[in-house]
Amino acid sequence: MTQPILLGGVEAGGTKFICGVADVGGRIIDQIRIPNTTPDETLDAVAAFFVKAQARHGKLAALAIGSFGPLSLRSDAADYGAITTTPKPGWSNINLLAHLRRTLDVPMTLDTDVNGSAIGEHLFGSGKGLDSFCYVTVGTGVGVGVMIDGAPHGGANHPEAGHIRLPRAKGDETFAGVCPFHGDCLEGLTSGPALHVRWGAPAETFATDHPAWAMAAEYIAGLCTNLTYMLRPERIIIGGGVMQPQMYDLVRQALTRQLGGYDASLRDLDMEAYVAAPTAGASAGLIGAFAIAYRSITGQWPPDWATQG
Amino acid sequence: MTQPILLGGVEAGGTKFICGVADVGGRIIDQIRIPNTTPDETLDAVAAFFVKAQARHGKLAALAIGSFGPLSLRSDAADYGAITTTPKPGWSNINLLAHLRRTLDVPMTLDTDVNGSAIGEHLFGSGKGLDSFCYVTVGTGVGVGVMIDGAPHGGANHPEAGHIRLPRAKGDETFAGVCPFHGDCLEGLTSGPALHVRWGAPAETFATDHPAWAMAAEYIAGLCTNLTYMLRPERIIIGGGVMQPQMYDLVRQALTRQLGGYDASLRDLDMEAYVAAPTAGASAGLIGAFAIAYRSITGQWPPDWATQG
Repeated sequence: MTQPILLGGVEAGGTKFICGVADVGGRIIDQIRIPNTTPDETLDAVAAFFVKAQARHGKLAALAIGSFGPLSLRSDAADYGAITTTPKPGWSNINLLAHLRRTLDVPMTLDTDVNGSAIGEHLFGSGKGLDSFCYVTVGTGVGVGVMIDGAPHGGANHPEAGHIRLPRAKGDETFAGVCPFHGDCLEGLTSGPALHVRWGAPAETFATDHPAWAMAAEYIAGLCTNLTYMLRPERIIIGGGVMQPQMYDLVRQALTRQLGGYDASLRDLDMEAYVAAPTAGASAGLIGAFAIAYRSITGQWPPDWATQG
Repeated sequence: MTQPILLGGVEAGGTKFICGVADVGGRIIDQIRIPNTTPDETLDAVAAFFVKAQARHGKLAALAIGSFGPLSLRSDAADYGAITTTPKPGWSNINLLAHLRRTLDVPMTLDTDVNGSAIGEHLFGSGKGLDSFCYVTVGTGVGVGVMIDGAPHGGANHPEAGHIRLPRAKGDETFAGVCPFHGDCLEGLTSGPALHVRWGAPAETFATDHPAWAMAAEYIAGLCTNLTYMLRPERIIIGGGVMQPQMYDLVRQALTRQLGGYDASLRDLDMEAYVAAPTAGASAGLIGAFAIAYRSITGQWPPDWATQG
């Protein structure tokens, strides 16, 4: 009897770590939700889950982690595998890979949480069949995964497009912004915490015609404009808590205006298709992590996980 | 006696078209400079040059054109091979490839002028040995070539990062900008023509301590900030008429300030190396076109053109 190939996945977030084990078909056979407390406690619980899961199901062939960041992802960097400078208290300079390797003897890959979700969308969501698209999440922070030729773009480390600079929206000239590094970068102006500070209440309490939404849409459209001119993606998938249902049309209208009729290929964009909601569901990030683990041993994305999620 | 492999290249600019023939080692064996007048006259002269060059030197194996744009570069587009909507009078909706194919029976490839120059820098200039870098030119317009994994990034068409949105520089809150599509996009605020309108005289007449330079550096650093956060390139190479020698340190200082100490890998950037001048010389664009032609028949960049230029 041959040992079945098992994959481990972790979706590491600011409030919780979702850990799972899947078979080679991407089917989840074990899963746990671990609250994010201290790094030691949380990572020990993650390692303990996989130790126990291996005792129960068999040895993992590979494990992948999609994590909040920023991360050190160049394998030649001294701190490769670490969360570097994060606003999340206690988590700066925590080496995720090094910590898990104390206990787990499994080949491990680290990538950003947004890349995990982007891969989930690529396999069975709004990014299916697309070579080049962007996955954006606007919530506690603003994160962007850039898929180019069917794989997450890395470069000298990994994109952090939530921190780009944009013009102020009309009527928002004086708000200082909340980003600890930049003040009024995109994330500083329009993340969930930014909206809370800017308008004095949590965004989820605003009526759908509250002016905060049109202003947030102006900034998110600014991100889309700059992504469009810099990368010419085939689609921009936008999710996260700030992207309430009414936001999609507001973003599309602002983006059409901002693109300014430049170039026939942009004038002819089908905005409904170009600015899309994620459709891969809440498991996209975890299954994306399984897919990264799969790719780390086979060199390619799983061809047949399209029905998952 | 076997026929030597000959490559054709065109650097198509707003004022002139440089055409050349090179051998497989990238050595130029014939060259002409054709003024850009009307599309018919200019393109007929380009075709006539290559007809004559083939009679003299032998048949071209491939021809590549690096052109001003925007261009239609997706081979499945109805207008593939065309300049689409350009401010250059008379050149909108001119199909470069179709026009040349009337006369020339040679396999042809079209790319942007900035990608041609970026490839020249990659072969024997400031981009040598780098997988991912950006080539920026700030002159009549603002153009950006994005090299990812050693090749120009295309996406759904080609980047036009000169048209991104950026915050206004201090003291520049009221200038409307000169971009016919966007007004105050990056190109509308800081191209050569924008500086001329903004300050009432051509930029080349300004003393090196004229306030125009620091303001232009603020905008160009804004482009570098957004390129950094979106793409994490290994280097940003900046040339063009606006990039006078004193501009490099101004851009580096503004960029350091704008990045705001985010992330160890950005705090540790060697700014002298990160923001660099082009070094491949005036022939970079033409030799880049030869390299694109070479790659269209061999599938790879020429390995041994490093001493050219």
